[in-house]
Amino acid sequence: MAANEALADRCRVVLVRPAIAGNVGATARVMRNFGLRHLRLVAPVADVNDRRARQLSTHGEAILDAAQLSDVLPHAIADCVLVFGTSARIGGRFREDNVRTPRAAMAMAAAALVSGPIAIVFGPEQSGLSNEEVTLCHYLVNIPTSPDYPALNLAQSVGIVLYELYQAANDPPVRPASAIAPHELQERVFAELQQALNAIGFLRGENATALVHAIRHLLGRAQPSPMEARLLLGMARQMLWHAGANGQG
Amino acid sequence: MAANEALADRCRVVLVRPAIAGNVGATARVMRNFGLRHLRLVAPVADVNDRRARQLSTHGEAILDAAQLSDVLPHAIADCVLVFGTSARIGGRFREDNVRTPRAAMAMAAAALVSGPIAIVFGPEQSGLSNEEVTLCHYLVNIPTSPDYPALNLAQSVGIVLYELYQAANDPPVRPASAIAPHELQERVFAELQQALNAIGFLRGENATALVHAIRHLLGRAQPSPMEARLLLGMARQMLWHAGANGQG
Repeated sequence: MAANEALADRCRVVLVRPAIAGNVGATARVMRNFGLRHLRLVAPVADVNDRRARQLSTHGEAILDAAQLSDVLPHAIADCVLVFGTSARIGGRFREDNVRTPRAAMAMAAAALVSGPIAIVFGPEQSGLSNEEVTLCHYLVNIPTSPDYPALNLAQSVGIVLYELYQAANDPPVRPASAIAPHELQERVFAELQQALNAIGFLRGENATALVHAIRHLLGRAQPSPMEARLLLGMARQMLWHAGANGQG
Repeated sequence: MAANEALADRCRVVLVRPAIAGNVGATARVMRNFGLRHLRLVAPVADVNDRRARQLSTHGEAILDAAQLSDVLPHAIADCVLVFGTSARIGGRFREDNVRTPRAAMAMAAAALVSGPIAIVFGPEQSGLSNEEVTLCHYLVNIPTSPDYPALNLAQSVGIVLYELYQAANDPPVRPASAIAPHELQERVFAELQQALNAIGFLRGENATALVHAIRHLLGRAQPSPMEARLLLGMARQMLWHAGANGQG
């Protein structure tokens, strides 16, 4: 199953007793942003048909329309092979060794998609999931936040967790580092640049060697591509040509 | 400097021409969640005193009250040693090898905090940053999203990027970054270098703009120290002086 199909077909976002319609709408939007489709609402207090929910869902309205309603959490997660709860509160009944960062948890979620549906469960804005609900989850996801004010907005939490899920599911291919100019070409750049800077009188005095080394370090750190190296060569030659054409030296 | 102090003192979130008051409020809240304090608004369309902004900021009201206003982006980032732009659009003027995931970008941001302030710049809801604004950024951050509907809500984007920043800042730094020159000094380097390259006839023809941008990207990637920036300034001035002293004009 392709990653994007799995995200669309096998991932459920479950909001338990959401109270604010705007949060449900914003959740639908960010689900769409990360390629998810299945929203489940457990005993919602907010009305998904509220103007504010519709407005904030933007292109996620179809997700709101298709949202499945349940009275209690067990029904909403019955078909899922792996269930993650989210909570700002760590401790209580939930053993600390079942708590994961979003990154670690979503890596597990993505790996489980071949087995069947997974669910990510978010509690009510004010109180979070109840102890009984937390107990139904296999893992608890905790987003690291400032101890000064840890309470994230509900839709922000959804966004951050789905951001990690999307990346884990797409197993973000390590970006092929853009080509770097071979050492020999880099040396030619340094040699010609040094010649040019000499020709315009920049390398006079006792600091000359230090200056050349400083330029080497600066350009070396940038890891120039072959194209960039040729650009620098062109620049050096133009400096030389210009110095020679006008030159006293 | 402790991680949390650095987040509070040295990180700026810059919203360019935000249109929706609720997004400014939600940005202030999530900044507080991740321990940030400095919000800068460039030519805001939205009113930070709007009821909706206040309501969504929750415990972030002090951040709204202290938000600094600027007319243009360069003023808002003048004191920053490293500037990240965010954009859903990749391409155009910005070369692909300057685009980073939030994770990679925020690892760099956290490492740069020992040198000075860093900025993360977010464009207007509808249009994103202009090409000119993107050019002022050292790196572009792109949040991987579903190609089907990639447009994240503004405050969601802020939340995801700050989530990565918070984690990176609380990770033990891999290496102490050496001091990086402030943006204003880097801009002076680019301006004088451009003038000098123009004086020696390197910037003729239709590729002139592309050449200037290539040099900006190359040097930006190297994150020049203040000393290196002054060295480049000296080099540019010597080129200019030499061109003028010998010059045909």
